[in-house]
Parts: sequence; C-alpha cells; structure tokens
Amino acid sequence: MAYQPPVRDHLFLLRDVLEIDRYSNLPAFADASMDVVEQIITEAAKFTGEVLAPLNSVGDKHGCTWNPDFTVTPPPGFKEAYKQLCEGGWTGLGSDPAYGGQGLPHVVNLSFSEMSSSANMAFSMYPGLAHGAYSAIHTGGTDEQKQTYLPKMVTGEWTGTMNLTEPQCGTDLGMLRTKAVPQADGSYRITGQKIWISAGEHDMSDNIVHLVLARIEGAPAGVKGISLFIVPKFFPNADGSVGARNEGVKCVGLEEKMGIHGNATCVMQYEDAVGYLIGEENSGLKLMFVMMNEARLGVGLQGVAQGEAAYQAARDFAKDRLQGRSLTGPKNPDGPADPIIVHPDVRRMLLDSRAVIEGGRAFLFWTALHGDLMHQHPDEAVRQKAGDYMGLLTPVLKGYLTDKGFKACVDGMQVHGGSGFTEHFPASQYLRDCRIALIYEGTNGIQALDLVGRKLASSGGRAVMSWFAEIDAFVEANSADEKLKPFIEGLAGAKAQQQDATMWLMQNGLANPDNAGAASTDYMHLFGLTGLAYMWALMAKVSLAKIAAGDTDPFYENKLVVGRYYLERVLPETAAHLAKLKTGSATMMALPAEAF
Amino acid sequence: MAYQPPVRDHLFLLRDVLEIDRYSNLPAFADASMDVVEQIITEAAKFTGEVLAPLNSVGDKHGCTWNPDFTVTPPPGFKEAYKQLCEGGWTGLGSDPAYGGQGLPHVVNLSFSEMSSSANMAFSMYPGLAHGAYSAIHTGGTDEQKQTYLPKMVTGEWTGTMNLTEPQCGTDLGMLRTKAVPQADGSYRITGQKIWISAGEHDMSDNIVHLVLARIEGAPAGVKGISLFIVPKFFPNADGSVGARNEGVKCVGLEEKMGIHGNATCVMQYEDAVGYLIGEENSGLKLMFVMMNEARLGVGLQGVAQGEAAYQAARDFAKDRLQGRSLTGPKNPDGPADPIIVHPDVRRMLLDSRAVIEGGRAFLFWTALHGDLMHQHPDEAVRQKAGDYMGLLTPVLKGYLTDKGFKACVDGMQVHGGSGFTEHFPASQYLRDCRIALIYEGTNGIQALDLVGRKLASSGGRAVMSWFAEIDAFVEANSADEKLKPFIEGLAGAKAQQQDATMWLMQNGLANPDNAGAASTDYMHLFGLTGLAYMWALMAKVSLAKIAAGDTDPFYENKLVVGRYYLERVLPETAAHLAKLKTGSATMMALPAEAF
Repeated sequence: MAYQPPVRDHLFLLRDVLEIDRYSNLPAFADASMDVVEQIITEAAKFTGEVLAPLNSVGDKHGCTWNPDFTVTPPPGFKEAYKQLCEGGWTGLGSDPAYGGQGLPHVVNLSFSEMSSSANMAFSMYPGLAHGAYSAIHTGGTDEQKQTYLPKMVTGEWTGTMNLTEPQCGTDLGMLRTKAVPQADGSYRITGQKIWISAGEHDMSDNIVHLVLARIEGAPAGVKGISLFIVPKFFPNADGSVGARNEGVKCVGLEEKMGIHGNATCVMQYEDAVGYLIGEENSGLKLMFVMMNEARLGVGLQGVAQGEAAYQAARDFAKDRLQGRSLTGPKNPDGPADPIIVHPDVRRMLLDSRAVIEGGRAFLFWTALHGDLMHQHPDEAVRQKAGDYMGLLTPVLKGYLTDKGFKACVDGMQVHGGSGFTEHFPASQYLRDCRIALIYEGTNGIQALDLVGRKLASSGGRAVMSWFAEIDAFVEANSADEKLKPFIEGLAGAKAQQQDATMWLMQNGLANPDNAGAASTDYMHLFGLTGLAYMWALMAKVSLAKIAAGDTDPFYENKLVVGRYYLERVLPETAAHLAKLKTGSATMMALPAEAF
Repeated sequence: MAYQPPVRDHLFLLRDVLEIDRYSNLPAFADASMDVVEQIITEAAKFTGEVLAPLNSVGDKHGCTWNPDFTVTPPPGFKEAYKQLCEGGWTGLGSDPAYGGQGLPHVVNLSFSEMSSSANMAFSMYPGLAHGAYSAIHTGGTDEQKQTYLPKMVTGEWTGTMNLTEPQCGTDLGMLRTKAVPQADGSYRITGQKIWISAGEHDMSDNIVHLVLARIEGAPAGVKGISLFIVPKFFPNADGSVGARNEGVKCVGLEEKMGIHGNATCVMQYEDAVGYLIGEENSGLKLMFVMMNEARLGVGLQGVAQGEAAYQAARDFAKDRLQGRSLTGPKNPDGPADPIIVHPDVRRMLLDSRAVIEGGRAFLFWTALHGDLMHQHPDEAVRQKAGDYMGLLTPVLKGYLTDKGFKACVDGMQVHGGSGFTEHFPASQYLRDCRIALIYEGTNGIQALDLVGRKLASSGGRAVMSWFAEIDAFVEANSADEKLKPFIEGLAGAKAQQQDATMWLMQNGLANPDNAGAASTDYMHLFGLTGLAYMWALMAKVSLAKIAAGDTDPFYENKLVVGRYYLERVLPETAAHLAKLKTGSATMMALPAEAF
C-alpha cells in the first residue's frame, strides 16, 4: 500500500493535545478553527498522497538532468505537480497575508510539510527552500524588495535558494571567499562558486531568487565580513513579470548523491552576477540564520516524515509477508504460514520506530506552536518563553529526530528482509533520502555543539530552567493520577538525568571546553529522550481523559500502548547517555592525531 | 588515501594475543609459524590493497550486466583480478591439502578474508560463496563428488553458489517448492526458481557449481523433506575439463540493489536441470547449515571489514579537512583552520567505530581459532568446548558485528559532512554495501532468535556456562593487577549483566516464548558487548605486558586508550539492553495487528 498521510494523529495533536482552538485570539488562529484546520489537513492528505507520493520513486530513478545550456530538467511529472501545488495555494499556507499568503499558524503549515516530505522528500525541498528564502526577505528586505519578491514567492511562481557552502567552507563560514563588488547603481557584482545548492536550477518556476552569502570587497575577515545578497535568475520587471536573464549566475553541474535524486543539488557559478544587498552590510549571517533556523526545524521534520513513511512500508510488508509461525502457536492456521507481524522482534522494530515518530511529531508540533506564540501572543512573558524554547529546542529537534528518523528507515528496511535491499520496495529510497537529513543545515554534531555551547548558556540558562520548571510543574500537578503514574515517573526520571547532565556540563564544560564538545551528542540525545517522555505524558493524559469520558475509539488505547512501549523500550537509553557523557574528554583527546 | 590493510593489528592478534605459535602441534599450524603467517599477511595486504581496492568503486558504478543469452558480465577488471586471485593461490588458503589446498588455519584465512572484504566486498563474495560450496561438498559429498569438484574449487577454476531462497520462502525454508525428480541413472531433474543468488552467473570461472535445495517428489512437507543437490553449470568431464552445458539452469535476471553492485545477484531458473544428490535424502538442510554457519561468520567479518574501511576513509578526511578551530585554541595556527580531527565530537564518531572494530576483529579471530581447535585439537574436551563456542558465538558475531559495522559506516559518512553524501567519496558505497550484511545469511533478528531459542539451551546450557566460567576465571586470575583494573571491572560488570539476562530468559522465556523473542536482539547486543569487553581485557593485558617489558612502540599505548574508550563510551549500553529486555513482551504484543 502506498503512503497514507497520518491525518488522525495530526488531528489528535492539534485538537486534543495542543488544543489550538484556545488561541483564537491570535491573528494566525483567528481563521483557523479546528473545523477549518481539519478541512485543510484532509485536503493536504489528498494532495500529498495522490499527487506527490506517486512521483517519489520516479524522482529517485530518473533524477535530474543537467543540460549543456546550463539548464536543469527535473524528473518527469515534477513540473506538473508543482503547478498543482501552486494552484492549490499550498505554497502560501503560512505566509504573510500582506503579500498574498494565508497567514495560517506555523503548526498547521507543519502538518502539511510533514505529509509533503513523507510523500516525496526531494520534491518538497523545492517549495521548502523557497519558503526559507521568503522568510529571509520578509525579515530583512526593504519594502521595495518585499514588494518585488514576496508576492511571487507566496504564489510559488518564483522559488528561492540558500547559497552558503563553498568547496573550502561548509560549517566554517568564516572561510567564505565569494566576493561582492559594489557598483555605481547601488547593486553588486557577485563572483564565486557555491556547492550543494538544493533546487538551484530547474524549470518548475518562472524565476529563482538566489540568496547568496558573499564578502564585500574590503570587508573584515571571518564571519564578521559576510553579507547577504539577492541574486535573481531573471531580473524582475516593475509589472511583476520577469525580464532579462542575470547572465552571471549559472548552474554548472549537479552533484551525484546517495539519495534525494529528485532534487537538483547544484554547483552554482557566479561570475559578475548582479546582486542586491539585503539587510545591513556585514551582517548577512544573522539574516541567513533566520532561514537556517526555520530550515533546521524543517529538517527535524524530514526525519520524522521519512521515518513515518518507512514505518508504514515496513508495517504493510509485515502484515502481508507469510513466513514461519508464531512462537505461541499459529495465528493464521489456514494459511501456509503466519504474517511476520506475529513475531515479537518484528514488532520491536516497528514499535521502536513508531514510539519515536509519534513522540517526535508531538515534540515538533508542540515546538512549532511556540513559534506561533513567540510572534503573536499578546503577553510578553509568553512570547519570551516561546522564543527561548524555539532557540533551545531547534537543535534538539534537528539532531535527535533525524538520528531517530534514520534509525526508523534502517529498521524499516530490516523488517523487509532481503526485499528491503532491492530497489523494488521503497525501503532503500527512504533510507538513502533520509540520510542527508543528519548532515545538511548543520550536521547533527554541529546541532549538539550549538545546544551545549550556545543555547544552554544563553540568557543565563533561562531557557533550560524554564524547561525544567515546566516539567516539574507538570509532574507535580499530575502525581496523584494513578493511571498516568508510569508516564510521570518516566518523565521525572529522565528530567532528573537531563538536569544532572546539565549540571555536569556547567561544571566541566567551562573548565575545559573539550568536555562540552565530548558530551554534546549524548546530551542532545538525553534532551530528546526527555522531550519525548514529556510528549508521551501529555498524550497519555489526553488519551486517559478521553477513555474516562467514554470515548471508545481504540485510537486512545493504542496510543497508551505505544506510550508504554516508549517508557519500557526507548527511555532506558537515558542512563547510558548520562554515564557516557560524564566520562569527559580526556580519553578521546589522548590519542595524537597521527594515531588515528 | 585508499584503504590500507591493518597488517599491524592482525599480527598483534595472531602473534601476541592468540599466540598461534603455541599450536604448532596441530596440523594446520605446523607449517604456519608466525614468520610464515607474517609473510602471507603482508602479501595479502599487497594483493587486496593494490589489486582489489582500486576496483571497488568501479564495481559500484558499473555493476553487472545481464545479457539476453542468459550470461552475466561482471564489472570491468573483475575477471582479470579473479585470475590474479587464483594465480596467487588465495582461493585455497584454508582448504584441505588432500584436494590441493594449503591447509592453513581458519584464523589465518580470516585475516585474508577481512582485507579482501574491506578492499572490495562485492568482489570478495565470488570466492566467498565458492568456499561455502566447497565446505558443503567437503563435508557431505561422496568421494567421487569430492574428487570431481573440490580440486577445481580449490584452485578457483570453478566457483560455487548457495541456492536457498525462493520468492515465497526465505527465512522459512519449510515453504520451499523447487522440486527434484529422480531419474533412472541416479541423477535428478531440478525445477524451480531461486532468487538473490549471489555470484549466480558470471564468466570469471570456467564452471559454477550450484548447490540447490529442493524437495524430492513425494518427500515430507516442511523442512524434513528438503534435500541438497549439486547442479553444475557445465558437466564435468572425467579429465577435469568442462563438458556440455547443463541447459536447464539459467540466470534469468539480476536484482537491482542498494549496494554490492559489483556482485551478480541472480534470479536463477531451474527447468529440468540435471542435479546430483549430495548427502542423504531429506537431510539437505543440515548440510546447508555447514555452509551457512561458515557464511555467518564471514558476514560478521564483512561488518568489521566495511566498518574498518569506512573508519579509514573518515579518519583520512578528518585529518585533511580544515574547518573551524579547536575549542581549546588553534592547533594549526599557520593554516586557515584546524583539521576537524581536533573536535571531540569528530573523535567520538571515529573512536566509537574503532573501539568496536578492533574489539570485534579480536572476537572474530578468537572465535575462528576455536574453529581450528574444534577440528584439530587432540584433547576431546578442548574440541568440545571449541565446538560449543562456535555454535554459541556465530549468531552473536554475525548480528552484533554487522549492526555495529553498519553504524561505523553511518558515522564514517557523518564525519565527511556533505561530502560523504556525494558519490565522489567512498562513504556512500561502504554504507550501501554494508547494509546487506544485516540481512543476508539470516537477518540479525533470526540470529538473535537462534541464539536465545537454540544455542543458549543446547546441551543444557553447557556452552554459555563455559563462557561465564572462562570469564570468571580470567577476572579472578587478574584481579590483583592494578593497571588492568578498569578492564577487569568493566568485564565483570558486563558479564554479571549478561548472566542476569540469561537467568531472566530461562525463567521467562520458557513460560512464554514471546518473552524470548522480545528479548532476543537486546540479549544478542548484551552478549556482543560482554564479548568485546573480554577481548579488550585480553588486548589490554598483552599491551600492558609489552610496555612493562620495555617495548616503546606507541601501538600498545594507543591500544590501551582505545580500550579505555570502549569501557567509558561503549560498554555503558549494557544496562539499557538489560533494562529493556526485562520488560518482556506484554506491551509489544498488546497491539492488535490491525492497529499497526
């Protein structure tokens, strides 16, 4: 069976767990009652399941074609599907109504994004990158720039890209060499090579708005001398049409990659390309991080999305494939064998995936709601706390959820046995596509460093203290609930270990920063595990309340089973992470480089 | 830098840890003094590094070609390299001298196999499968069959295959349908389809000896009615040349796979193909398990081999790639940035891999030596214990080491950042090739079930009791050694947890077999972790002795550092496995199949 968007789970989160109807006083939510949201999500499921999903393996098998005239042809069907995406208004779901967007909450947009990414990750990156570019212009552009670019990007007629990486610099953007030379008319001429530019060239949109990091001649060395430029593929006319080609920007090749073949990963050559400064001189990095933070949340979402798709494929296989008999006696006595879903070890793989996917989805939605509150809540204290959480949790969601989403893809293949290794089943594509999510928009190691090196300490640790206080308050408020008890105990235990690790980091990371680096990935995982324990406690509480109120939908009982599985079979990993990180950096730094 | 065979580490294991010179009274070791073995390993490194490794990415990119005349063309260069393999005598290294083999110990052959698999996994499978077929004929064939087939297989002129899987049956061989019809001349006619037949068709050898599981007409249903047949591609002439084509056997297609593109994974069609029974009627499975057990050890080795190759590529990248600065101040102050190997989190990934690869290699070599003792030791008690260990440890080595070898490939790609996801670096191929090792020759879940369901209980638990007793004796004998203390404590702690888990399995697995199934994978990992703790203690003891004796080779100090890393950063996972498995099967079995 092909990918089925998990509509029921999305509605459960939005309606019952996050109760978004509470926020109807905020602008984004005013027109987003749950009835409306349900309609949108149902339509989203239809579009992604029926239009995007069937093109997923087409994109994988055909890939993109670079043509000698520097154009790129995307896989068959992508251009037509993109047209439908635009016509359906999906590109502007969460965009500013001032520029034609629908202004819906981030958390609703996220629901669409997950389905879109599960259905066709490579396709979803074209509008995904465009939205990142939209956000940067929306945040840092002049009024004229906004008027020129945003309406076209909201309709999807124009797409966008992010140009950071160069052959000699990825993580370390201070080494960036692309240069920008000021012109008499106030524009710049951009020269340099950018690599790994997703959706860098294609014919799906009328124009491509490249956002390019470059160094203005004479700017300071390092990250303090980097500016951001708009480099359109075609110059915009005043009437909104596209004019002449910006000849200096060209795609000179495509990367050969392990996955996401349907996305054009371009080598972009800039040779005296005309560009327009956006934001202040030498403060390009700050603006790029507007895109980057949004993108990081989106990549965490890709982890969950690919994990979900891989889970579904594995589950369908496990229900169909007849092989062997249940250890407790035949469950399909009239057939030649039992479906392999009778075997505990097959269920272990499926439930390992599902416990993390459902918990991870909840954590993403919960965080995205804070993104809405951060921008729109009338109470400044709420806005501040929401902003703190967005900063603190973004690296956790990106790093932890892509690690675990990839594990779900690996396990999903394993459930298939030999079939999974062949390209006749979708397991290989999910694994290969998902693998990039652990790397791009800052490797997971960089996320972990951002978390322990910057986010934990920011504002005197205010964000993480809010986090602990919120969990303490929840534990306290629910400690008398007998049925919720295992969830509360699991959460309290995980939080205590995360707090212990945080104290250890404060004491040892300052004394020797290598201790912080050595602890970072284990800390990020410990944080992710604690976050999911909190989400499972929230979901369990709602499910128990529904059951107590007489709701007989098995959805709630099943949710409790998966939650218990999380407590029993996933959460015990916290102690290993804590024990490992407390061993510090001495041993790993003891080997001289030449001894590796 | 290309793959460099780890000669130093192999010699350390054979000479210093296993002290194979002790066994010169056994036939296989009589001509295998360490001086001779060192020469062989040095030559092996040269051949695998210089001939096989350069063809690895050629095989990946070209793959194999199926031709309409039912022949298969392997990747360019493979045929020539195979000729060199034969001319070098590598195909008969561990084979019986009675048939032209060199009769060297298994453990020496393993050294060559690891290098060969690291250098070119897809290539190494052609002789690898042939050796499996050799072993089955050697064990179960008539004298005439042995004389006909073995000498040619020892020289490599003829290769071999294993034909088990059919579209409707993989793990569950009881569902096998391929039929064998007895003929008047004592031969059989074989009809059926076999899939995923590695090295099933190619032009590298003069003949291919297919070993095929089939059901003789009228045989009992299920696994009790399966026989094994020799189905040669060409009929052997009395003079050792090949005669007419066995027209009934054909490769009708190749599988499209995620990796090991250089190996021809064939769909084999048998239509009245002439076959010869090997072994007794209806006892084919027993004989197939001779090949299977050997193959399982070989697959565990592939996990280590791909992990080693991936580690080396990642290490080389990490030493070369300049990006960012050390958290404790510049280490390459004259360069534009420091090599990324200065970062603790990069070292974490490299050392996670190395600790498991070096420990895993030791565990494989240690076990393979027991394979030699099992066959050749004069003392029956030693032979029995060695045989017990081979049975008990084979599933652990296959399952644990491929899981961890694959993790090393995933981490190796991660060290590369974005470069790793492109096909310009070898990381992607290592990851894609290694992935099959978790699946074939019985999925890792099947290994875990074999371990808890069969091997633990066999002969009243004699094997696992020997294992615990051996570790206890080692701990006892070395408890006064202050320098070895962390290794002894780590080992004793892991062993106590494995014993606890074993007790839990005895009590709960019998009561409800689903508890054994639910615990199986965690138990296998706990066993693997304990095994590697033992190996690290053995290696640390030798290294400490060398240092105490005044040996200043930094190899020994570095070995101790990697061993400490294992104790600090890998071994803490035991507790999580124990905690998980003790939660039993109730939760994972609670979900009805339709709720997945």
